[in-house]
Amino acid sequence: MSKTPLLDKVSTPSDLRLLEEGDLQALAEELRTETIDAVSHTGGHLGAGLGVVELTLALHYIFDTPQDKLIWDVGHQCYPHKILTGRRDRIRTLRQEGGLSGFTSRKESEYDPFGAAHSSTSISAGLGYAIARDLKQEDHRVVCVIGDGAMSAGMAYEAMNNAGARNSRLIVILNDNDMSIAPPVGAMSAHLSKLLSSQSYQSVRSFGKSLSQRFPGALQKAAQRAEEYARGFLTGGTLFEELGFYYVGPVDGHNLNHLLPVLKNVRDTEHDGPILVHAVTQKGKGYPPAEEAKDKYHGVAKFDVVTGEQAKAEPKAPSYTSVYAKALIGEAERDERIVAITAAMPSGTGLDKFGEHFPERTFDVGIAEQHGVTFCGGLAAAGMRPFATIYSTFLQRAYDQVVHDIAIQSLPVRFAIDRAGLVGADGATHQGSYDITYLGCLPGFILMAASDEAELMHMVATQVQIDDRPSALRYPRGEGQGVELPEQGVPLEIGKGRILREGTKVAILSYGGRLGEALKAADELAARGLSATVADARFAKPLDTDLVRRLSAEHEVLLTLEEGAIGGFGSQVMYWLAGEGLLESGAKVRPLYLPDHFIDHGKPDKQYQAIGLSAEGIVASALRSLGYNDADTRPATA
Amino acid sequence: MSKTPLLDKVSTPSDLRLLEEGDLQALAEELRTETIDAVSHTGGHLGAGLGVVELTLALHYIFDTPQDKLIWDVGHQCYPHKILTGRRDRIRTLRQEGGLSGFTSRKESEYDPFGAAHSSTSISAGLGYAIARDLKQEDHRVVCVIGDGAMSAGMAYEAMNNAGARNSRLIVILNDNDMSIAPPVGAMSAHLSKLLSSQSYQSVRSFGKSLSQRFPGALQKAAQRAEEYARGFLTGGTLFEELGFYYVGPVDGHNLNHLLPVLKNVRDTEHDGPILVHAVTQKGKGYPPAEEAKDKYHGVAKFDVVTGEQAKAEPKAPSYTSVYAKALIGEAERDERIVAITAAMPSGTGLDKFGEHFPERTFDVGIAEQHGVTFCGGLAAAGMRPFATIYSTFLQRAYDQVVHDIAIQSLPVRFAIDRAGLVGADGATHQGSYDITYLGCLPGFILMAASDEAELMHMVATQVQIDDRPSALRYPRGEGQGVELPEQGVPLEIGKGRILREGTKVAILSYGGRLGEALKAADELAARGLSATVADARFAKPLDTDLVRRLSAEHEVLLTLEEGAIGGFGSQVMYWLAGEGLLESGAKVRPLYLPDHFIDHGKPDKQYQAIGLSAEGIVASALRSLGYNDADTRPATA
Repeated sequence: MSKTPLLDKVSTPSDLRLLEEGDLQALAEELRTETIDAVSHTGGHLGAGLGVVELTLALHYIFDTPQDKLIWDVGHQCYPHKILTGRRDRIRTLRQEGGLSGFTSRKESEYDPFGAAHSSTSISAGLGYAIARDLKQEDHRVVCVIGDGAMSAGMAYEAMNNAGARNSRLIVILNDNDMSIAPPVGAMSAHLSKLLSSQSYQSVRSFGKSLSQRFPGALQKAAQRAEEYARGFLTGGTLFEELGFYYVGPVDGHNLNHLLPVLKNVRDTEHDGPILVHAVTQKGKGYPPAEEAKDKYHGVAKFDVVTGEQAKAEPKAPSYTSVYAKALIGEAERDERIVAITAAMPSGTGLDKFGEHFPERTFDVGIAEQHGVTFCGGLAAAGMRPFATIYSTFLQRAYDQVVHDIAIQSLPVRFAIDRAGLVGADGATHQGSYDITYLGCLPGFILMAASDEAELMHMVATQVQIDDRPSALRYPRGEGQGVELPEQGVPLEIGKGRILREGTKVAILSYGGRLGEALKAADELAARGLSATVADARFAKPLDTDLVRRLSAEHEVLLTLEEGAIGGFGSQVMYWLAGEGLLESGAKVRPLYLPDHFIDHGKPDKQYQAIGLSAEGIVASALRSLGYNDADTRPATA
Repeated sequence: MSKTPLLDKVSTPSDLRLLEEGDLQALAEELRTETIDAVSHTGGHLGAGLGVVELTLALHYIFDTPQDKLIWDVGHQCYPHKILTGRRDRIRTLRQEGGLSGFTSRKESEYDPFGAAHSSTSISAGLGYAIARDLKQEDHRVVCVIGDGAMSAGMAYEAMNNAGARNSRLIVILNDNDMSIAPPVGAMSAHLSKLLSSQSYQSVRSFGKSLSQRFPGALQKAAQRAEEYARGFLTGGTLFEELGFYYVGPVDGHNLNHLLPVLKNVRDTEHDGPILVHAVTQKGKGYPPAEEAKDKYHGVAKFDVVTGEQAKAEPKAPSYTSVYAKALIGEAERDERIVAITAAMPSGTGLDKFGEHFPERTFDVGIAEQHGVTFCGGLAAAGMRPFATIYSTFLQRAYDQVVHDIAIQSLPVRFAIDRAGLVGADGATHQGSYDITYLGCLPGFILMAASDEAELMHMVATQVQIDDRPSALRYPRGEGQGVELPEQGVPLEIGKGRILREGTKVAILSYGGRLGEALKAADELAARGLSATVADARFAKPLDTDLVRRLSAEHEVLLTLEEGAIGGFGSQVMYWLAGEGLLESGAKVRPLYLPDHFIDHGKPDKQYQAIGLSAEGIVASALRSLGYNDADTRPATA
């Protein structure tokens, strides 16, 4: 007999709506079990999904999805949603190559009207849907589900500020689990705590009932207004009310007896304008190992369902992230001007470790990269040495601040750009593809990329010394190369690369994490009788022009190699060669870079291979550039 | 006898502090007169500065600048501040080449601790200064002055959310003139209006006095808390209080008898944590032509002080902005799916005109580019045809949204990018230098640039038709070329350029507004016996590869030309040529692009000349690439 008899009947939300309300609690348990089991096979985000099992069920039960638009913020909590919306058969392919995305995705399902993965976009997208509906004189609901952590981002505020001044009907569910990835920061979090401790939440048992009375569809407008006024008077304005939202809550997000009537009333109310439903949930709910874990099983590897034990492979080398943290801690012990800033990613960036050593010099600004970067600008202007430690993909959030507040003023903010290049299971939304390009065009910036974890330590030490301009250091996700680490980093000469192997025919100039592949490619070329030079550029800016000149002059082909898109390191090299008149007179130049299409979730090694950035691809490019067929140079031993 | 006897004694704030309080009102009048006179000679931002004359005086009188850090948001209101801080002698060089910047600038003065020009950065920078002070155990004040319009930006909220949760002493002056550039939008604006109509503002005459009682330094903490509690109970929490700020106000920002004691008390209070002083001012205050103008003389040309009449030169051609508005209005008359979005720049973008025709289809989201772009994503996903009309420099604010919400989902948002290239008097912070680069690396984007205003109309028509992916159209600030305009635009073939002149030796491939210079350069080359082809690429992406191949194959030199930085159009051309093996075998390629340094305020024509992007510079590049000395090809007639 199936362990999930109810869930087996539900392929889509319309099946769900055939069930009795009384069956939903049992269905919730089945949905929770199925989610846990799926993630135990695939790994992925677990705690967030477990926190919204009842909410997911209630939303699809009450609202007429997909006609009604349900927009999840971030989308890492959407596994139960995927199970209920026709994707249960593929749920054990989550985050695997060719399988389901770990986030919502328009490509995947009509039940995902707007994809996500970065935080705090749902209200903006939902307002777009709502306004389009009004202009087209359609009649459906738009529901956005956003977490309390996502409320620290300015984008959510911008959207509320805009929505709150309009009369468009929009429902926002604030999923308040008092924890995004890390413990919450910021004044908004304190505000939410205050709401939770208010009298109305103490009497939450009677809440569903009172709400039914509060939102009768036929109520006269005047009476509604009187009620709203009285309510505001009694409970005090909330921040959401000040922003023009009708605030409903807090409501227990795990209690279907509360959730269903509240959502039904919100669905049916004649109230114009935006409504915010404050639902309180518990991350990891219903799975003891998750509930008890410090991070509530935010992101997990495959695990044993009974014990909760995760099957993490033994690392072969420390991660770049951990080496960065170690390096920065070392530098900060010697220099009290060093401070470190994260935007809500203390453990992802290694700054949790830094924070254990230097709690007063560690700043988690919330999901607020814009503010975080300019905050670093202020710190730098005041003589501190701030390290803005932000993933490549999230630094995009602060691009204008990087340009306007840091680069134009030439302030010595140190950007430590983690997750540069392909990132794996998080997929297209998280690839660190563009930073070399979008920073490379900014005058005065110093750009570095680490080719191994020892280099990373030297580059952190280098950044400490750069006091007259901004600098950026990028490094990949995952394990380092396993090289020996120095006691402490030694500052590098600015704008100087290094040659690792001398050859004559092909030059490979690598910037960043592909250096190992370049060396392998050189071996393979040598086996074919083609001598190759391999150099590590270290700096994209300022470029080591002596090195580039020499590589161009002394080889037939010069390959540039980077884990980045068009316009990056390759452009720095080619524009300089063009300006010197060397583009046509020296070595043939071939940039190797990320291709012009988005790369979904999968294994980076395999993906780099597929796009020609592995040793094999480098060799193929070299041969093609030399005009050889592959067979022309096959090694004799083959 | 001097008209400004008091001001003549004040070179710096320390001189100011020697004056009696009773002299300040007269000094304010002199400062106002001087500001008006200066801007009547230079043009620039006037209304904003006139609105803060008293506030500027009061701040420098009460606070110990430059030890105390005074950070103006945007900085366009800082002309009176510049007059008081050692820059009066140069105040009539404002925004002129080599003269004072129209914004605050660290390069200019120690009284400008953090430069600005884009909105809403001051609280972040100020918090950085405040935290640095605390870490260094220094003891000075940090004061940020931010407008109510700037409060619609998420960045300001992020900063308040972060500051409100800390105990660092920080003073934020909210300069509420109920108007940034355009009338205010958003829920925050309504919130401020409500505060203004509250009883406390009605009794503002007694406010200074009551404030003195509220902030006695020696008051017991317990008593303070009791008072805060009582106050919150009586007036209701404000949004700022919910965000953790101590809220003071509203106070009349033109009445020194109110301002001085409030600021003094705020300066001397023992209160830890951030304080917000809500000052109410009037944009254009004290100069009738400004007070009566709809935009309060936000930005003006040189003008006659007596009549207020502005000396605007007769335009030779309609501006790109106005042609864009006209084109979009025409398209929208034929297609009701077209909607237009601006981020607080209705008149700057021409969308005020669009709004007159289609008020229901025009959306001013506030200074909220992040939200605005994703809002467009929602509209597009719901089947509308949104035109996100944003200056190049401000689109930087929404870069992650462009990547994550638009490009990855391939949503057909139409970006209309005004002020692309050099912009003139606004200077480095406003140059539209990077959009080709930062959009060119995004898969799937269609990128166009208009070479004249008729092309602009065709390109708007083209964008209307692009329904399966995002597109961006860039065009310069200022007047068009004076070409005849079509009745309506005709969609272009995607990815096809056009040849304007056929030649044999030099090919100039222009992208955007430099096409006229390319044609002039071709004339000049012809006069020297060098035959030149001139082509308008129209598209940077998809690139017209047939055209590029032909230009490369049939010429000795191929110059790419653009009003953008490294990594843009030139990269699209060079990477494609490299991939085809044509970089070394066809024409010599030379990218012409914006140089690797920031370009300050000045006349764009002159600036383009200085950086080699005028006809003259193009010719010089062509000759240099061909290996000619200038004399080798001097025309016989010269």
